[in-house]
Amino acid sequence: MAKKAAKRKPDAPADAGDDTVITALRLGSAALTPAMQAYFDKCMDRLGFVPNVLKAYAFDMPKLEAFVAMYNDLMLAPSGLSKLEREMIAVAVSSQNRCYYCLVAHGAAVRGLAEDAVLGELMAMNYRAARLDRRRRAMLDFAVKLTAEPWTIDDADRAALRQAGFSDRDIWDIAAVAGFFNMSNRVASATDMRPNSIYHGQNRA
Amino acid sequence: MAKKAAKRKPDAPADAGDDTVITALRLGSAALTPAMQAYFDKCMDRLGFVPNVLKAYAFDMPKLEAFVAMYNDLMLAPSGLSKLEREMIAVAVSSQNRCYYCLVAHGAAVRGLAEDAVLGELMAMNYRAARLDRRRRAMLDFAVKLTAEPWTIDDADRAALRQAGFSDRDIWDIAAVAGFFNMSNRVASATDMRPNSIYHGQNRA
Amino acid sequence: MAKKAAKRKPDAPADAGDDTVITALRLGSAALTPAMQAYFDKCMDRLGFVPNVLKAYAFDMPKLEAFVAMYNDLMLAPSGLSKLEREMIAVAVSSQNRCYYCLVAHGAAVRGLAEDAVLGELMAMNYRAARLDRRRRAMLDFAVKLTAEPWTIDDADRAALRQAGFSDRDIWDIAAVAGFFNMSNRVASATDMRPNSIYHGQNRA
Amino acid sequence: MAKKAAKRKPDAPADAGDDTVITALRLGSAALTPAMQAYFDKCMDRLGFVPNVLKAYAFDMPKLEAFVAMYNDLMLAPSGLSKLEREMIAVAVSSQNRCYYCLVAHGAAVRGLAEDAVLGELMAMNYRAARLDRRRRAMLDFAVKLTAEPWTIDDADRAALRQAGFSDRDIWDIAAVAGFFNMSNRVASATDMRPNSIYHGQNRA
Amino acid sequence: MAKKAAKRKPDAPADAGDDTVITALRLGSAALTPAMQAYFDKCMDRLGFVPNVLKAYAFDMPKLEAFVAMYNDLMLAPSGLSKLEREMIAVAVSSQNRCYYCLVAHGAAVRGLAEDAVLGELMAMNYRAARLDRRRRAMLDFAVKLTAEPWTIDDADRAALRQAGFSDRDIWDIAAVAGFFNMSNRVASATDMRPNSIYHGQNRA
Amino acid sequence: MAKKAAKRKPDAPADAGDDTVITALRLGSAALTPAMQAYFDKCMDRLGFVPNVLKAYAFDMPKLEAFVAMYNDLMLAPSGLSKLEREMIAVAVSSQNRCYYCLVAHGAAVRGLAEDAVLGELMAMNYRAARLDRRRRAMLDFAVKLTAEPWTIDDADRAALRQAGFSDRDIWDIAAVAGFFNMSNRVASATDMRPNSIYHGQNRA
Repeated sequence: MAKKAAKRKPDAPADAGDDTVITALRLGSAALTPAMQAYFDKCMDRLGFVPNVLKAYAFDMPKLEAFVAMYNDLMLAPSGLSKLEREMIAVAVSSQNRCYYCLVAHGAAVRGLAEDAVLGELMAMNYRAARLDRRRRAMLDFAVKLTAEPWTIDDADRAALRQAGFSDRDIWDIAAVAGFFNMSNRVASATDMRPNSIYHGQNRA
Repeated sequence: MAKKAAKRKPDAPADAGDDTVITALRLGSAALTPAMQAYFDKCMDRLGFVPNVLKAYAFDMPKLEAFVAMYNDLMLAPSGLSKLEREMIAVAVSSQNRCYYCLVAHGAAVRGLAEDAVLGELMAMNYRAARLDRRRRAMLDFAVKLTAEPWTIDDADRAALRQAGFSDRDIWDIAAVAGFFNMSNRVASATDMRPNSIYHGQNRA
Repeated sequence: MAKKAAKRKPDAPADAGDDTVITALRLGSAALTPAMQAYFDKCMDRLGFVPNVLKAYAFDMPKLEAFVAMYNDLMLAPSGLSKLEREMIAVAVSSQNRCYYCLVAHGAAVRGLAEDAVLGELMAMNYRAARLDRRRRAMLDFAVKLTAEPWTIDDADRAALRQAGFSDRDIWDIAAVAGFFNMSNRVASATDMRPNSIYHGQNRA
Repeated sequence: MAKKAAKRKPDAPADAGDDTVITALRLGSAALTPAMQAYFDKCMDRLGFVPNVLKAYAFDMPKLEAFVAMYNDLMLAPSGLSKLEREMIAVAVSSQNRCYYCLVAHGAAVRGLAEDAVLGELMAMNYRAARLDRRRRAMLDFAVKLTAEPWTIDDADRAALRQAGFSDRDIWDIAAVAGFFNMSNRVASATDMRPNSIYHGQNRA
Repeated sequence: MAKKAAKRKPDAPADAGDDTVITALRLGSAALTPAMQAYFDKCMDRLGFVPNVLKAYAFDMPKLEAFVAMYNDLMLAPSGLSKLEREMIAVAVSSQNRCYYCLVAHGAAVRGLAEDAVLGELMAMNYRAARLDRRRRAMLDFAVKLTAEPWTIDDADRAALRQAGFSDRDIWDIAAVAGFFNMSNRVASATDMRPNSIYHGQNRA
Repeated sequence: MAKKAAKRKPDAPADAGDDTVITALRLGSAALTPAMQAYFDKCMDRLGFVPNVLKAYAFDMPKLEAFVAMYNDLMLAPSGLSKLEREMIAVAVSSQNRCYYCLVAHGAAVRGLAEDAVLGELMAMNYRAARLDRRRRAMLDFAVKLTAEPWTIDDADRAALRQAGFSDRDIWDIAAVAGFFNMSNRVASATDMRPNSIYHGQNRA
């Protein structure tokens, strides 16, 4: 993979820079707290890299720690939603908001968790084109409506989730994950955040 | 104020229930951790009540703690944006998203911080009608565009903030506060979250 | 109230000016006709002030008289809709159009007619968050759809009103009130019309 | 024209009914007041027919009189805007709102006042395709923006009108005519109002 | 009709120029191939003029030939949709896209094929106001939804067409005609294409 | 790569079916004409497969031939736009319309022609995030505005293209390519067209 990447033409090194200049803002840097250093080390161990969003927040430790705590709780803690389902919400919401960073990073996650090279594409391009079961379609319909027109969400929308088998706690989790990516999409778009270039090739087959 | 509230007619107790049934979801309850108990106690001391959003999150301590940590960092930690400016962003974003909970709670905050009974109304109804200086108008134009069409944010939008006197760190903070309320608005709308009734009368004159 | 208003900080006299400079347009003035003088006198008697919208129209007597005649017929004449219901339509429509003048003035009217300090807020912020009976929800759904996408109104929309108990004459009145505020909202927004500052504190508890 | 209309095929008498069943609502009828009888007589004299919108309002004399008074003041009284310009605003606004009644009736008026069979079509289809001078383009840009997104109107929009040569009184008149048709469009759409069939053939060459 | 057109006032010859300067682009000209010469001759024979869209494409023979081949197949070849139905789709789609050229040219076609002077107006102004049978209403609902929000089309939309009596082949044809005019509308709008002035008076009674 | 593909889980064979069931419509089949047989053979030779869109149109030879003729002229014939630029327009337009088929097929084309694994992703996700030179940004801004709001295209939009160095013929080509994909996107969405699964892995590094 690395060898082929070297073939990229000199006039189009779009992603090379993405790993060194991560946002359009010049924000100083801060020393990582021990907890955050340990977290970055864990990223290196498990992923082989530190996701750029973490580097972007690392100019200020309280902001980084708050982001990491919320992210890990939402995406990794026990939930009635599988990790794949939470990543599917992440990508469908990011597609509605056309967020480059999140589509690249979480599209790779969907491909990996599903062991399906195509599902991440479907979420990024138009989740309605994916042949989903009723549960997942209802989940994404809610998340995307909540993204596009949150003011119209109503008892009928919650009832549709319950009819698709979701508990009230699941509804909270769908809302919270959708909400979180509505936040992250906007921080990424506001700062022109660039994803690590390694994501592009991950889990493609 | 509490006394006047008692004047409300028996057939229109819309807000009375808002303080007891806070969301449309039935989520168990959890014992407050010592840190969260201390935080709720501080709310009682300073505000006289615990904001309903905190009670809504209190079914799960990691979620509550992550929310509180991020909220307090964004809204209360040192920043180039004043606390009032951050609350103005909160309300202008919540107006774009037509979020009842956040408009009520943060509208009261703008009225209080500004010592201006009208400014909160202007933010909630149409920030463009407020006679703001150039800095605050640019700040809100960015926050609301980021809310409505995040995919269109561009170098030109960041340049407009710099020309209005904002540093790159300030731009981060505008984006982060706007992003946070895009999350909170959606959690509140998804769960039909109801604001404490006491907010309505606060700082009205 | 007037006394507390004096507490407003010198750098934020947003509403003080609202009572003296009412629009962004310089339009000469005209002598009130006897009928209009009597009407303004009646406003002073009953309300203690003349609503700024009337002062805004007072540069031309035929325009003022036509406005007053239509307004009074729609909002005060006998109808199957209560006065409160007509004011609820006024505010929900004005919320869809984000009209500062009308939200302030008619929000106060809803609070007063309902003797409910909260209902006006709900109409102004998001009528869908109000816990309305079926009749009123159907009425506002129709009025807001007619405001946002009038070209989509169909027999099915009229049928929904009839099923909620409205007569054909009631449907006319809903349409006419919603239509009227779609006019007024635009005249107010086009001219930057400012509401009397006294509205803000009215009927708050 | 009447003769040719008779050529229409029996299975497509769409407009024949338009002159007898004017709205989808069954509203009783009322005796015309002498003033309104005189007005209807004048319509018969000058136009050869009574516009259906007047018949639609004629179930209630105060409503009819208020409508007629406002209409005549706005569209016929002295103004810095020519009658043609006011009709151009009527049609451009009605096009934005896709109002069948108003496009038919006022499209015919533009064709007649302009003695230009095409200008009414351009207003109804897309005013931006008409080759207008700067004054009229600015006028319609304002009226259509005010129709589509009234909350975004700003000092800059008023300044653009002034730079195109309009006085503050002219700006009022543009706003008032645009506002009026935003009302009328919605009353017509809400009631499925049908235009007199004679309009279709008027001023076509 | 041609005689009456001569009555148009000298200061408003909007459409006169439409027959000589057809687009806002200066594109050279090309010699017509024999096939295209024959096609233009046939237009002259049958219509009395060459539609301006053909002249606009005639700067390049392969483009003209490809356009003509696709157009004739879609609009004239055997299909479960009548020619009138295909023209109704053309106009309803062009109305959604507010395309002046296509509304004028195909509005005339609907008037002619239906022998109904009004139906073309209804399609151009708001197809929902036409009193259509269920089949045609379903057909246009699909075509206009496909135009406005193609990403939301779903099995349920196809099922609605089948329930209205359309075969799968008919669904293809509805989609293909709607798609074609979504293309043509954009080429016309991008180039400011002007319709032949003769269309305006055609089939008016 | 092939080996990993075998790992795909049995319950997620989304793309396997995409090569056999190409649309949601059951349309008979037709014998390929010699010209079309030769074209399909050429596809097999050069690409190793026949693009599914061609198979979808192959139920009817005149439709297939018209599509192929227009496609090849637009995307392959000499033009002031490079083939890559035409494919960039295809993907940016398809992203605006969220068309799964076209994003997959033409995203692969951009990756291949650019020899840049990332550029196709950028076009599909949000072309504004790509770091394009002024020419290409202007080209895509025009194509996407033409897609989203064709009725607003104006002389100023054409002037912006000329200032970015485009000739009038180039403007035609931008419009024609953007128009074509507005057609294709809708045919694909209307029929639930599925891309060949091979596209997903093409040109990824």
